[in-house]
Amino acid sequence: MLNEKMIALGTARSVIRELFEYGNQRAAVVGRENVFDFSLGNPSVPAPAKVNETIERLCRELNPVQLHGYTSAPGAPAVRQTIAESLNRRFGTRFSAENLFLTCGAAASLTCTLHGLCCPGDQVVVFAPYFPEYRVFIEKTGAEMVLVPADTEAFQISFEELDRRMNPKTKALLINSPNNPSGAVYSEATIQKLAAYLREKEREYGHPIYLISDEPYREIVFDGAFVPYVPNYYENTLVCYSFSKSLSLPGERIGYIVVPDACAESRLVFAACAGAARALGYVCAPSLMQLVAAECCEETADLSVYAENRRLLLEGFRQMGIHCVAPGGTFYLFPRTPEPDDVAFARRAKELDLLVVPGSGFGCPGHVRISHCVPTERVKKALPVFERLAALYR
Amino acid sequence: MLNEKMIALGTARSVIRELFEYGNQRAAVVGRENVFDFSLGNPSVPAPAKVNETIERLCRELNPVQLHGYTSAPGAPAVRQTIAESLNRRFGTRFSAENLFLTCGAAASLTCTLHGLCCPGDQVVVFAPYFPEYRVFIEKTGAEMVLVPADTEAFQISFEELDRRMNPKTKALLINSPNNPSGAVYSEATIQKLAAYLREKEREYGHPIYLISDEPYREIVFDGAFVPYVPNYYENTLVCYSFSKSLSLPGERIGYIVVPDACAESRLVFAACAGAARALGYVCAPSLMQLVAAECCEETADLSVYAENRRLLLEGFRQMGIHCVAPGGTFYLFPRTPEPDDVAFARRAKELDLLVVPGSGFGCPGHVRISHCVPTERVKKALPVFERLAALYR
Repeated sequence: MLNEKMIALGTARSVIRELFEYGNQRAAVVGRENVFDFSLGNPSVPAPAKVNETIERLCRELNPVQLHGYTSAPGAPAVRQTIAESLNRRFGTRFSAENLFLTCGAAASLTCTLHGLCCPGDQVVVFAPYFPEYRVFIEKTGAEMVLVPADTEAFQISFEELDRRMNPKTKALLINSPNNPSGAVYSEATIQKLAAYLREKEREYGHPIYLISDEPYREIVFDGAFVPYVPNYYENTLVCYSFSKSLSLPGERIGYIVVPDACAESRLVFAACAGAARALGYVCAPSLMQLVAAECCEETADLSVYAENRRLLLEGFRQMGIHCVAPGGTFYLFPRTPEPDDVAFARRAKELDLLVVPGSGFGCPGHVRISHCVPTERVKKALPVFERLAALYR
Repeated sequence: MLNEKMIALGTARSVIRELFEYGNQRAAVVGRENVFDFSLGNPSVPAPAKVNETIERLCRELNPVQLHGYTSAPGAPAVRQTIAESLNRRFGTRFSAENLFLTCGAAASLTCTLHGLCCPGDQVVVFAPYFPEYRVFIEKTGAEMVLVPADTEAFQISFEELDRRMNPKTKALLINSPNNPSGAVYSEATIQKLAAYLREKEREYGHPIYLISDEPYREIVFDGAFVPYVPNYYENTLVCYSFSKSLSLPGERIGYIVVPDACAESRLVFAACAGAARALGYVCAPSLMQLVAAECCEETADLSVYAENRRLLLEGFRQMGIHCVAPGGTFYLFPRTPEPDDVAFARRAKELDLLVVPGSGFGCPGHVRISHCVPTERVKKALPVFERLAALYR
């Protein structure tokens, strides 16, 4: 009688959430310091001080009716213009307020974009390893998700595998770089090759193919990794962004969609995203946080903890002989498991109170995800435990 | 190629928004004080001082990682428990955290509930006059909206008209009391009669019929009007609430769904709403505002301005011979137009720089909506203009 699909989605407990709750139970038994929980991708460093300073200042200075009032559906024009100009300075683009649609975070950016673009019967291509909610978001539109297997050597794109899955029903591709869970950043060569390939396919099919670039981790990069700004390489790019990770405010639900003028049917795409936002019940992005985002859009939380954790783990894995592609960004590592069955490996890890997420859930078996957005102390104490685990396989 | 329905929704400018923007243009020509804009339903009194005080205190006192971090999908358990206990005190219910799902505002409450309940082919009954986004929200689920014509004598329910539209496909009824646009509050007798009628129909059809009570205006009532708490009268009630109007923070997007234990398949309905929230891209309600809602859930903005505006307008209309049912709540009046064509009447009003919204858009021609959430000064200056307009029809 009710909507069975929605019940299933609301009932299914995610593997990640289950691990996390198991970790809390174990902590009660063996002590928090003896549970090495690397399950959740929840930023562990505080928002930059400017965030709370801005909130407090706005509360004191602005008229509450204005501060907490509705904005127009795409967001306050001044906020959109400020963020557009910041992007222009950083990436040499020429966006204005008209190109930005503010959203309630990355998930809303994606659902509004997907519901705007897709009709039942369309296909959306996703690359493994991938964030599992992509399937939920895509299928809710009536479109089909088509999965391209992972390039497990470098976590770039296997164009051969991609080419096998493209067809005239391909409405869009969804990429995520820096990537959750692999941490990989698509190189400029990868993006250039993808752009050239998609242009060729657009000519062949006679219709635009949209490239949705989901990039909440853009600011979390290491060793000076270069993250190409995708609209500069491929016209029909839509950027889905969130301030959750860069500003460490994932609960506040603030992000945006960029629809560049160069994009095919740009104004119609923008209207379609706006229409989808309306139909899904998004009235406007949270008003106070819109203003905070405008003030803080060039800030980031202190990323040095993630850098240090990444360094310690990569160095440790190297010494233990655990293969792990050094990620350009994010707070994830995605090492190869010493046995092909990643679920079995994660189970053995769990017996040592080491909580890591099997790669199978991300469409990439034979790997586990380690979220190192944790205190560095936990990483240091976990290294000998990783070593004991690795030793079991020698 | 894109989703045409979403483009249409994103492109269509609402009559209300057009009127509002026309008002701004006219204000630039004739002066703001000479435009009598009663178009927008945007709270005009500030949030209670406690809202900003709470925000500032939380910024100072809480760890930012906790303050701005993800909560669980249905919302922070302590927040849900606090709001549940407040409802219990006020309405004699026995809710706990488990009955509340926090949302990004009333629109999200409705879309999550509707997507959770409805399957394509289902019907959802709505009563005129109605908030026009209901149609958008219902149709996006694949269900059909069935409209019951207005009882224009008292703006209660015409049970004869309702009975003609009920059938085994009826999944839910959606009511809105206090009502936008009529301001009417369903009496206890109406709710009792509706409950008895629905129980009878449930027996006849052999399945539950859910009553969705959309009540963002619950706190905005006058002359001690009694707003029955619907779950106390009918078991299969789901309450969709928002703090937008009561706390004057419509931009902040914070509200909730109540799924009472007494409701048929209560845990499945809750799971279905959670699944729908997930699929639509709602990760959690904004985290800071969750805490603010818990602290302020028994506060309201100062409603005396609305009370005074309502009094002035009702008294003025009475003297002018304009028929208007005295509304029990909201900041709307919905007078009968002296000519049957409400669009023509609103056009004539507009020529006098009096901006009111035709009732046709709410499924109730022959009336106009007057949003009196404006400065009382505007109401006073507008009364002689209403009089000139009324005189045209004598």
